[in-house]
Amino acid sequence: MQAINIGLLGLGTVGGGVAQVLRDNAQEIARRLGRDVRIIAVCDKSAERVAELCPQATFVANPMDLVAREDVDIVVELFGGTGMAKEAVLQAIQLGKHIVTANKKLLAEYGNEIFALAEQKNVMVQFEAAVAGGIPVIKALREGLAANQIQSIAGIINGTSNFILTEMREKGSAFKDVLAEAQRLGYAEADPTFDIEGHDAGHKITIMSALAFGTPVNFGACYLEGISKLDSRDIKYAEELGYRVKLLGITRKTEKGIELRVHPTLIPECRLLANVNGVMNAVRVNADMVGETLYYGAGAGALPTASAVVADLIDISRLITADTENRVPHLAFQPSQVVPQNFVSIDDISSSYYLRVQAADKVGVLGTIASLLAKENVSIEALIQKAVLDNNQAEIVILTHSTIEKNMKAAIAAIEAQECVAAPVTLIRMESLHG
Amino acid sequence: MQAINIGLLGLGTVGGGVAQVLRDNAQEIARRLGRDVRIIAVCDKSAERVAELCPQATFVANPMDLVAREDVDIVVELFGGTGMAKEAVLQAIQLGKHIVTANKKLLAEYGNEIFALAEQKNVMVQFEAAVAGGIPVIKALREGLAANQIQSIAGIINGTSNFILTEMREKGSAFKDVLAEAQRLGYAEADPTFDIEGHDAGHKITIMSALAFGTPVNFGACYLEGISKLDSRDIKYAEELGYRVKLLGITRKTEKGIELRVHPTLIPECRLLANVNGVMNAVRVNADMVGETLYYGAGAGALPTASAVVADLIDISRLITADTENRVPHLAFQPSQVVPQNFVSIDDISSSYYLRVQAADKVGVLGTIASLLAKENVSIEALIQKAVLDNNQAEIVILTHSTIEKNMKAAIAAIEAQECVAAPVTLIRMESLHG
Repeated sequence: MQAINIGLLGLGTVGGGVAQVLRDNAQEIARRLGRDVRIIAVCDKSAERVAELCPQATFVANPMDLVAREDVDIVVELFGGTGMAKEAVLQAIQLGKHIVTANKKLLAEYGNEIFALAEQKNVMVQFEAAVAGGIPVIKALREGLAANQIQSIAGIINGTSNFILTEMREKGSAFKDVLAEAQRLGYAEADPTFDIEGHDAGHKITIMSALAFGTPVNFGACYLEGISKLDSRDIKYAEELGYRVKLLGITRKTEKGIELRVHPTLIPECRLLANVNGVMNAVRVNADMVGETLYYGAGAGALPTASAVVADLIDISRLITADTENRVPHLAFQPSQVVPQNFVSIDDISSSYYLRVQAADKVGVLGTIASLLAKENVSIEALIQKAVLDNNQAEIVILTHSTIEKNMKAAIAAIEAQECVAAPVTLIRMESLHG
Repeated sequence: MQAINIGLLGLGTVGGGVAQVLRDNAQEIARRLGRDVRIIAVCDKSAERVAELCPQATFVANPMDLVAREDVDIVVELFGGTGMAKEAVLQAIQLGKHIVTANKKLLAEYGNEIFALAEQKNVMVQFEAAVAGGIPVIKALREGLAANQIQSIAGIINGTSNFILTEMREKGSAFKDVLAEAQRLGYAEADPTFDIEGHDAGHKITIMSALAFGTPVNFGACYLEGISKLDSRDIKYAEELGYRVKLLGITRKTEKGIELRVHPTLIPECRLLANVNGVMNAVRVNADMVGETLYYGAGAGALPTASAVVADLIDISRLITADTENRVPHLAFQPSQVVPQNFVSIDDISSSYYLRVQAADKVGVLGTIASLLAKENVSIEALIQKAVLDNNQAEIVILTHSTIEKNMKAAIAAIEAQECVAAPVTLIRMESLHG
């Protein structure tokens, strides 16, 4: 089938990520979409960078030349800002090009004008990457929750601020010290105003508010208060009272109208949002039928943001091709690409394990158990003798390092064969859920 | 525009929910979709129930008669099980009807046959409600993360089991006592085998595994181990070691093949999944470009499940109408329905507040502050004197009940005007994030 041709405006961090995703996952994307998606033209300040990262694409110096190319199906706008980005997007729409953009500022401030022209020209403007990076929350709001009246949204949607607040809490450090550290780590810009004073979060919650309530985007209505004046004492006192301080973007439909605001907020420590740490983002949506749902993931970074950009490219690609093969396939991949694969027997998986052994409370038992584990190459991370039971039996809890399950079972069989072991060994698998 | 006509198979708990969502949110759905979605025919054991819950629909006694109706655009299968449900779904597809189903067992066991016939007949079979209830995780896997190679999925996808494990941990109760309580509360069936032995979670992780890796559904390859043999001691010991025990559905691509398994699992207590409690569900997805994302919400219940069923109806409705007006609108609602609405000034919002006041450490100061708050109708939830500072100044931390912000600000102005108050009052808003 015919490939979809992309024209890329801006080959910076996110643009480089988009090029990488389309290159590294070309086969997986074609398996899902049924056709190729390829970057055919790139406009960037650096022709060298284009030659290096998109060798197959044509370098175009002038954005207006790129959007005018007849062979471009979709224009991806990653310039950022509202100057050239706005001009190029409006011109591309005027020429009938579909748009994918990660530009929250552009949409929060000029979305109404852009969407109106897009309606008129019958093109799509997709912007999953503009809010919460790689988390598909725009899709959830526009499609997944479409049966609901949305009542409120609260989100941690600025990674820089969340990193700073997390560090302030964990280390008790002052705002300005943590900001300097964040700048050193590349989590904060040299001029951090946009992130720490709530503008970036304001752009994102403004977009989500419009989607939730069916109202034009209205950034001017958004109350903005950032984290720069927070004192680490307040974070400490809040914690003593059972709360965490987070920079939240909040929008809510009330009898008086729509609330739209960004400010530091105390939230009870038991809430999932209170436990979203570092640069991660999360958006909590309350809706009348489904109740509370929450979406968590990386809110920034080249590849997570590119993941959202490319998902939008795939969505548009499905819609602009006239056949029915463009539908989302039932099993996510094209039927011809749904192929039987090998499944691993439970005996062959690798896992860490929790074991509880009930054995006679006497000298040498621990050594016996440890050596039976060692014999099967099971390495012990922790071994703790718990309560001694009535009948001179002790309970021993063992955490193991990762091992093949059949080795674990062989070791358990050997342990259970010991006279000093009184009952079947309890085995529970462990998952670090890390990476 | 022409309405979309639904034929409903089964008017039980979820069927009743679907009828309610389509009725109560008819206007919101039409604002989004641009047309009405209406139930025109219902097959159920009880004609009375149909007359009561869907008075506008025709009662149809025989499911085969319902799927054969020419005026039905989409068949919603909510019979459950694999007997009549399977027969009716296959016949409906044969007759060219699109399908929406919440039936995880049917898809995990007969999905390959059903999807193959659907491809052949060019119809869509949608099943968001079959996995994790109201959480749009099928949409995330098939569309939102389409740019990624998915690496692993781990989910809490059986609410009954999670409720039991949560209670066992919080109360230290034995499995059988908590099960009895869950049955009393309606969270567990009279015969709970299907939930507590991992079958239900197995069906769901089998479906997600196929979507993640592009393989046919293969429930037979799924290792199943439930929670009925768990001892509350192991939950306690795990907690002492920093872990929580959860029933996880896990699927992962490894060099040996695909792992597909359901079993109780120790996970570090700091992970979000470890903090998903009660009947709630959550699915964690690891993918190569976006990294970790997580989706949280209600995994069962009439209205959350109906939310997912109706989202599928809206998706199909967009695709089966030939005009471009069927596209997902930019701002989620049809352009004509995007209407300016009133935004609430920050002075008019209601919120609880954290205040920190620095004042002279002397008799009467607390009383003065309390009465100034009372004068503006600000009610105090907690008032704590914190550290006394060097210069005979005390720090007082106050949590208030909900009040209008302008009252709060007036009270603060009055407090700051007191001679005994040495510095501006620190104000941080609070959100319970509850409901």
